[in-house]
Amino acid sequence: MNNNTSEKLAEITGRIIAEGSRGMAYHSIKHGEMMPSTNALKEIVELLRKILFPGYFGNSSLNSQNLHYYVGVNVDKVYRTLSEQIRRGLCFNCTDEKAVSCGNCDEESGQLTLRFLSRLPEISRLLSTDVEAAYRGDPAARNHGEVIFCYPAIKAMTNYRIAHELLKLGVPLIPRIITEMAHSETGIDIHPGARIGQYFTIDHGTGVVIGETTIIGNNVKIYQGVTLGAKSFPTDENGNPIKGIDRHPVVEDNVIIYAEATILGRVTIGKDTTIGGNVWITTDIPVGSKILQK
Amino acid sequence: MNNNTSEKLAEITGRIIAEGSRGMAYHSIKHGEMMPSTNALKEIVELLRKILFPGYFGNSSLNSQNLHYYVGVNVDKVYRTLSEQIRRGLCFNCTDEKAVSCGNCDEESGQLTLRFLSRLPEISRLLSTDVEAAYRGDPAARNHGEVIFCYPAIKAMTNYRIAHELLKLGVPLIPRIITEMAHSETGIDIHPGARIGQYFTIDHGTGVVIGETTIIGNNVKIYQGVTLGAKSFPTDENGNPIKGIDRHPVVEDNVIIYAEATILGRVTIGKDTTIGGNVWITTDIPVGSKILQK
Amino acid sequence: MNNNTSEKLAEITGRIIAEGSRGMAYHSIKHGEMMPSTNALKEIVELLRKILFPGYFGNSSLNSQNLHYYVGVNVDKVYRTLSEQIRRGLCFNCTDEKAVSCGNCDEESGQLTLRFLSRLPEISRLLSTDVEAAYRGDPAARNHGEVIFCYPAIKAMTNYRIAHELLKLGVPLIPRIITEMAHSETGIDIHPGARIGQYFTIDHGTGVVIGETTIIGNNVKIYQGVTLGAKSFPTDENGNPIKGIDRHPVVEDNVIIYAEATILGRVTIGKDTTIGGNVWITTDIPVGSKILQK
Amino acid sequence: MNNNTSEKLAEITGRIIAEGSRGMAYHSIKHGEMMPSTNALKEIVELLRKILFPGYFGNSSLNSQNLHYYVGVNVDKVYRTLSEQIRRGLCFNCTDEKAVSCGNCDEESGQLTLRFLSRLPEISRLLSTDVEAAYRGDPAARNHGEVIFCYPAIKAMTNYRIAHELLKLGVPLIPRIITEMAHSETGIDIHPGARIGQYFTIDHGTGVVIGETTIIGNNVKIYQGVTLGAKSFPTDENGNPIKGIDRHPVVEDNVIIYAEATILGRVTIGKDTTIGGNVWITTDIPVGSKILQK
Amino acid sequence: MNNNTSEKLAEITGRIIAEGSRGMAYHSIKHGEMMPSTNALKEIVELLRKILFPGYFGNSSLNSQNLHYYVGVNVDKVYRTLSEQIRRGLCFNCTDEKAVSCGNCDEESGQLTLRFLSRLPEISRLLSTDVEAAYRGDPAARNHGEVIFCYPAIKAMTNYRIAHELLKLGVPLIPRIITEMAHSETGIDIHPGARIGQYFTIDHGTGVVIGETTIIGNNVKIYQGVTLGAKSFPTDENGNPIKGIDRHPVVEDNVIIYAEATILGRVTIGKDTTIGGNVWITTDIPVGSKILQK
Amino acid sequence: MNNNTSEKLAEITGRIIAEGSRGMAYHSIKHGEMMPSTNALKEIVELLRKILFPGYFGNSSLNSQNLHYYVGVNVDKVYRTLSEQIRRGLCFNCTDEKAVSCGNCDEESGQLTLRFLSRLPEISRLLSTDVEAAYRGDPAARNHGEVIFCYPAIKAMTNYRIAHELLKLGVPLIPRIITEMAHSETGIDIHPGARIGQYFTIDHGTGVVIGETTIIGNNVKIYQGVTLGAKSFPTDENGNPIKGIDRHPVVEDNVIIYAEATILGRVTIGKDTTIGGNVWITTDIPVGSKILQK
Repeated sequence: MNNNTSEKLAEITGRIIAEGSRGMAYHSIKHGEMMPSTNALKEIVELLRKILFPGYFGNSSLNSQNLHYYVGVNVDKVYRTLSEQIRRGLCFNCTDEKAVSCGNCDEESGQLTLRFLSRLPEISRLLSTDVEAAYRGDPAARNHGEVIFCYPAIKAMTNYRIAHELLKLGVPLIPRIITEMAHSETGIDIHPGARIGQYFTIDHGTGVVIGETTIIGNNVKIYQGVTLGAKSFPTDENGNPIKGIDRHPVVEDNVIIYAEATILGRVTIGKDTTIGGNVWITTDIPVGSKILQK
Repeated sequence: MNNNTSEKLAEITGRIIAEGSRGMAYHSIKHGEMMPSTNALKEIVELLRKILFPGYFGNSSLNSQNLHYYVGVNVDKVYRTLSEQIRRGLCFNCTDEKAVSCGNCDEESGQLTLRFLSRLPEISRLLSTDVEAAYRGDPAARNHGEVIFCYPAIKAMTNYRIAHELLKLGVPLIPRIITEMAHSETGIDIHPGARIGQYFTIDHGTGVVIGETTIIGNNVKIYQGVTLGAKSFPTDENGNPIKGIDRHPVVEDNVIIYAEATILGRVTIGKDTTIGGNVWITTDIPVGSKILQK
Repeated sequence: MNNNTSEKLAEITGRIIAEGSRGMAYHSIKHGEMMPSTNALKEIVELLRKILFPGYFGNSSLNSQNLHYYVGVNVDKVYRTLSEQIRRGLCFNCTDEKAVSCGNCDEESGQLTLRFLSRLPEISRLLSTDVEAAYRGDPAARNHGEVIFCYPAIKAMTNYRIAHELLKLGVPLIPRIITEMAHSETGIDIHPGARIGQYFTIDHGTGVVIGETTIIGNNVKIYQGVTLGAKSFPTDENGNPIKGIDRHPVVEDNVIIYAEATILGRVTIGKDTTIGGNVWITTDIPVGSKILQK
Repeated sequence: MNNNTSEKLAEITGRIIAEGSRGMAYHSIKHGEMMPSTNALKEIVELLRKILFPGYFGNSSLNSQNLHYYVGVNVDKVYRTLSEQIRRGLCFNCTDEKAVSCGNCDEESGQLTLRFLSRLPEISRLLSTDVEAAYRGDPAARNHGEVIFCYPAIKAMTNYRIAHELLKLGVPLIPRIITEMAHSETGIDIHPGARIGQYFTIDHGTGVVIGETTIIGNNVKIYQGVTLGAKSFPTDENGNPIKGIDRHPVVEDNVIIYAEATILGRVTIGKDTTIGGNVWITTDIPVGSKILQK
Repeated sequence: MNNNTSEKLAEITGRIIAEGSRGMAYHSIKHGEMMPSTNALKEIVELLRKILFPGYFGNSSLNSQNLHYYVGVNVDKVYRTLSEQIRRGLCFNCTDEKAVSCGNCDEESGQLTLRFLSRLPEISRLLSTDVEAAYRGDPAARNHGEVIFCYPAIKAMTNYRIAHELLKLGVPLIPRIITEMAHSETGIDIHPGARIGQYFTIDHGTGVVIGETTIIGNNVKIYQGVTLGAKSFPTDENGNPIKGIDRHPVVEDNVIIYAEATILGRVTIGKDTTIGGNVWITTDIPVGSKILQK
Repeated sequence: MNNNTSEKLAEITGRIIAEGSRGMAYHSIKHGEMMPSTNALKEIVELLRKILFPGYFGNSSLNSQNLHYYVGVNVDKVYRTLSEQIRRGLCFNCTDEKAVSCGNCDEESGQLTLRFLSRLPEISRLLSTDVEAAYRGDPAARNHGEVIFCYPAIKAMTNYRIAHELLKLGVPLIPRIITEMAHSETGIDIHPGARIGQYFTIDHGTGVVIGETTIIGNNVKIYQGVTLGAKSFPTDENGNPIKGIDRHPVVEDNVIIYAEATILGRVTIGKDTTIGGNVWITTDIPVGSKILQK
């Protein structure tokens, strides 16, 4: 590298710093806390997958004796690593939005992690209903094992059900990171704020969008490309969107929504309804309807 | 970690095990065989990509002399690693569905791997037609090399053509894992059971679904978001779907299907047909048709 | 492994080489240059992300003093690794298309890299407008940090804006590899040749396609599944597509395009227009229109 | 790489194979079993270190609850990985020396591993005496923890005590690999066949040699550079050394041997003796002697 | 794994825990702090080597511009990682020896790290004298670069000079870990407590021992196998060695000590003295002596 | 990190650069070439070990068919990676000693690598004699395989014989790096310039030193701690040692040298001689002598 080049690089470095300093990007200059680590969160989700589906993920030579050891170790590891990430998430939030003291972040993150872990048995139960629904809903499924091991819907629902519990506990940032991981891997984009009942399944899945305030009942099945989205949203006087308004659909029990259908706004799809592929819905649909593509 | 926390974690561990034991998730407790390793299968597909496209993947300083060495080593490695994964796949299946003795699993997996490898020249030939089709079908393609190296369609078709041969040999579970890898990377979801002719290409690809019993002829091109799916499926007396029924489309030679079109059920799209974007088809289409969005 | 097996493998190796030699796949036999490394390019994009969003990616304990060191080191690393990859890209192109001498590839790649780096401040400025647009456009966004750290649109736009600059400098192959990385991770497929103004955002994103000759103005927002594509393309006498013809839409300022809308061909969407979800457009749309799904 | 070079490399390859085939080096051509993996054995020793010194190696946030989980998991992992390596060791031996059938190698290696594991509590007890001896013998030792964590003697003795138990069980090859690992790391070369009592310690350690048939009592301390070696050995009619003859020293209880002392042959160093530094001994030494450098 | 085996493993696990609990090994059960990480310390020493010998270790395309960036980043990284390890070292010590509150461990470790870093220029200066001494002392040395890059003496002295500064600051445990790293790599065992002047060199090095209270002047050269050790040490009423007594040699300026010489006890080797190989010294040696092997 | 700390770190950074700039350490500032990579050289030695002892290192399921592929690939890899390292070594030397133009470094390094590779068959032959000698010389050796796989002497001799050929070809720096690797792992320090005949073996090995101008005949065996060193060396008018003078022993055929013996200076040990342990020799020894410790 000659002198010319190195002077050029120094000059570019200076300009980048000058440009960046003007913008909002230099988040961390204000404080010194680490951002949550996406790699650490990936490993945490892998550990949780081993806890929730032992024998499918992780060591598979399990028996009634060593199962106890392995689950014990994995729960212990999740406690330590997740509480660290939750602490970072809490700090990220407090410094970025308002100047809240984070004095007890250590203890709070430990408490939140324990409360999250105590919900794992319920997450396990819900996911077993999702596996059952996926198996029953796909003639190509050879057995439950193939569903657990290969199906993108199970991967996406595992991340969603983990993230949803974290969001209910008030953990910032991390739930969204976890669902975006599944979005990237599966093309299924479920906001962690959505509420989804048991025996839920998604076939193929790519392109599915389920928005933040969506409510889905039990025994619902949707196909690839389905959107449960918002129609529009009010903004405040500064043009920023107003947060927290219910703006996504309510889908009641026993509904099937076929591929590429789009349902927008706070509308209710009555129970026992079938929505055909590719249809566009922005109004309430009565119980027991069959809406087909024209 | 104080005593309270560690007692809490022990109690949660106990509850998770109790919950899981009730469900169907604890697959491996019944037997001691390892599950197929998705990481090993990823490496196997990488090795096959090096064998099928030497000079593009892996060492690229190839010449007529060392090409022989490298292909020889890669074939040898695939033999050893794939036969191990096939053995696991065979064991997974037999224990999970019925109590079949796996006494000759070692030999059977070796035999199946050899038979798979002997089909590699044909897979190589078919993929070279797919590369040609992609190059001809995209004005943005600068040269064949860019197609091989960058195009998601080639990635997805490589995995599919490998998986399809394995499925034809009766290898369980592994074909689906291999196509789901490509699904995750490309958003193109091709069931390994589908039958696809030569000179096949997919443009962009995200959201494409090609179902288990689909049959596609030669010189077919499809665009992103196209579904070749099932309309519905019969269930048995227990509500479980009946396996193995032909329920996906037959697409004959020289058909083009534009973006977001959906074709459902065992219908036949006659040869030399063009299906416009976003259309919805559930009936046979005669030879030479042009079906456009209304 | 018995003798039979090893003879069989040797015979298969021979057949693969024979088959491959017939096709166009054996790129590298012709010359000895290495292909660009996708792993190296992934690391380069990660370094650029650290430069463009310091504090969010990479070390986050930054302050006004060490920021200078870290940006300096990262710029230096990008210079060295990217110039190597650009050199490979130049060689790939010249050998594959025409027999151009690559005598000054080393110096040319260094020059191109410097020119690319000198555009980083502008890329940084443009991305900060995209972050602002994403934040304003999503009621679910808690703060700018969440947008930068989690949103697929920002990941895709970062890769696109990097790749677009490289393409404008005439760097072959590498721009496409970089946008395909983002395509794989986010399901958003933006050709590096597209031209996109400031304050651009994509909601959810999976299934979005933006073609090579697309032109997008300022303050444009699009949703998942939107295609800005080509209708058809002329071929030359050999049936190969003619390169470089403008065949994708022009989208003017302040346009919103809702989910799954498809716009094909060199049509112009006039400024201040709203395109509803799922609509299909192949003609010009006047300024200030509202096109809704029927 | 030009043609000349690649032809040259091919010619060299041919000559290497021709040369190697003449010699005894091509071990594995005769059979197909894998060699033991030194990397796997390194990980096994690391796992055993975690089992034997919990809290010092591996996870250190242990408490009475999770200790049980971690030891359980580590014992389980050692069982699986060590039985695989023992199986390879058994196969290595039988094919290399005589054509013994290895029909029950799987079961035998499992049995041997179990028997080894059942001796871990005794190994743990012996090592705690070695730690105590090292602590008492070194004024520079701040506390027991520093001894466990840093002292080469403890590293070497851990490997030796593991290897010695494996050798007593008749496991071939692997004991030597394990002591050579410690030799490489510490410069302390203890043959796994040596027999060493409790409360043994080595100060500094580099250059210590303890031969195969050495017997060492309790409370013995030696310094760097001490050799407990053989004087000479008889050979058979082919000039090969006769195996298994006692040819190294017997060192009784409460002996100290200072730096660089050399003791050769089947001589006995009586109990309560002090051997000065740098002395050379080839005869029996009576109980209670003080042998000093002249 | 059959039931018998898994019961056996469970029983062994129980016995190991019972055995271990009796001993002193279960350090961490008493408290929850992590042990210092040897891997982290290895990386810290690597970073320091890059800071102390830029251009030899780490990125070598340095120039007057980017040198500043790289040293700045490396100093910043050492600050963050070393202060964490020092904190662990402080905690290890306080819990293990006496019940000292570690309330301000975070701040104290930051302060100690800063003070250590401020001594780096002096360490750099001293090491450059050692390099000069090694170059002048070895006819086989081709140039200074070879000495810096390859010579075990420089590796050992780098670790020692770092560790010695940490020990002077009162950092527990970590100095010893750092010198034991070099001991393992080079066979040179220098206690971090020794005091060594400038222009010090060791030829070959394996087997060198330099004890805790050794004092070495300027321009001293020693060869392989030299011991500067203790003769004996007093014990307290419990038989534990009394700490902190001066018990190792004082070696004055301009002394050469040839291979395998052993010098024991608090004796003084007067300046300008030559000690021949293999000699054994336990008394003071006057200035300007020549002590040869008889 | 507060402002105070970051200012402190900046100040320290400045002082380190100022200090370092004064010394000779900043090698690379003068030019921009990379230093040889010790990691790359480690991998190269591993590849050579696989080539020289196929079946022991690397893939061990070798047969007469795939052996050819594996050796071919490994020779090819060594060619590419070693020629790069040799190029760096050439550049290191020319810039550091005198301003030689490195215009044809690329071609020269390729040529040197080819010439080195063409000597591999001879290296293979020599090493097989060393294995035979080690097996015959140690009653504890169970079989040739154990010797190849575990004995430090074979590890050290492999590195030495490789390094010696490179040194004979005039490759700078790299030979020494390769023998220092073995020195670090085994405690055996053989200068690459030494000349050693066939059937050479070293027992235990730690502490062995064999100097640059040593000449060793055939059938020589030495034990741990043996030094074949220099007595003293003349310096030039600047006090720098004069290079290249013969100053180490000549050891003729069929000599045995027992542990800790030291032989210094350009003396000749006549053939068929036995040198006892711990003796000190600085004069010629006649043929057929037996020199014992007094």
